[in-house]
Amino acid sequence: MARTASAQKQQDRRAEILAAAQTCFARNGFHQTSMQQICAEAGMSPGNLYRYFHSKEAIIAGIAERDRAEVMEEFAAADLSQDFFAVLEAMARHHFAERSDEQVGLCIDITAESRRNPEVARIYRTFDADVRARLIAMLQNAADRGEISRDIDFSGVTEMLMVIADGVWMRRALAPDFDPHAMLPMFMDLVRFMLRPSDMHGGKPGDVR
Amino acid sequence: MARTASAQKQQDRRAEILAAAQTCFARNGFHQTSMQQICAEAGMSPGNLYRYFHSKEAIIAGIAERDRAEVMEEFAAADLSQDFFAVLEAMARHHFAERSDEQVGLCIDITAESRRNPEVARIYRTFDADVRARLIAMLQNAADRGEISRDIDFSGVTEMLMVIADGVWMRRALAPDFDPHAMLPMFMDLVRFMLRPSDMHGGKPGDVR
Repeated sequence: MARTASAQKQQDRRAEILAAAQTCFARNGFHQTSMQQICAEAGMSPGNLYRYFHSKEAIIAGIAERDRAEVMEEFAAADLSQDFFAVLEAMARHHFAERSDEQVGLCIDITAESRRNPEVARIYRTFDADVRARLIAMLQNAADRGEISRDIDFSGVTEMLMVIADGVWMRRALAPDFDPHAMLPMFMDLVRFMLRPSDMHGGKPGDVR
Repeated sequence: MARTASAQKQQDRRAEILAAAQTCFARNGFHQTSMQQICAEAGMSPGNLYRYFHSKEAIIAGIAERDRAEVMEEFAAADLSQDFFAVLEAMARHHFAERSDEQVGLCIDITAESRRNPEVARIYRTFDADVRARLIAMLQNAADRGEISRDIDFSGVTEMLMVIADGVWMRRALAPDFDPHAMLPMFMDLVRFMLRPSDMHGGKPGDVR
């Protein structure tokens, strides 16, 4: 009982540090944020903070792990649903529009940092590969249940879904008047088109393909 | 004649500084690059460099202006063509796959920096708005020539084109095994779908829409 309470306390402390670090990164960028600033934001001594995270890269790994757990929960919930397109739309709405500007900005910062920091790159590429694998599994699952055709390049479709998801975040970061909600209907049209039954593929010249 | 030669020399010098700055930004990021490093890379004294650019933001504006001129040339060339889809595919291929990793990385850096630097944000948002306006004009032009339907939400389609273009660059920056060439056929399928004749819109439930 005491051990559980202690483990919970430790987990809460980690979550607080990650939240404080995210605030600092949003304010100054990953590279320009020091461990000292994170300590100040979290209201902790350096000695205490270093017990949880020994470097900014370890904090980034912690944030990635936190976000991955959240995304994997979403996928786990999605697998139970009966309506693939409705589930995907809800996930897209959440990812496109309900993530905070802070999360979106952090993602751009991390991507920029990953070009020069192999450890950060490794962490985010692992996360990325997990998301890709889960998306492919979700498509295969929908095919197993007969909701979409099996005769689809799931890997290629997944790649395009990730391109669009990342692009929406780039637009959010770059263009202040970009409205992610407005993208959803067209996004879902494109998804339905990419996942259309195989007898609708091909067609005569002048058709959509 | 002497004045022309002098103007040309000045323009060459500006181009050299922009190239040197881009190399520095690629190596260390925009924020972590100093004017001194750019001077060293360009082989110029600070006094000389400041005659051309008085700040890193002015250099970013110069890079944006250079890239904008290049993109606008592409659009100008595109307008003369007769085959809209072939022109768009060539532009997409160039943008997706033929831009250097350095250019892609710089774009991510600038996007990250623009979150905290209003001057950088202003420069890139102007560039962005220009590209959007030219894409819309290109679609309208294709409609005027009867190559695509007029009954299309050009603004919405343009937004999606920019989402995908930015997303491809994010994938390039994030995932080392991402192949931008492999995205082109599916991208063109999606473009043809978004720009399909209006009598192919709608349809019965279970169709692509």
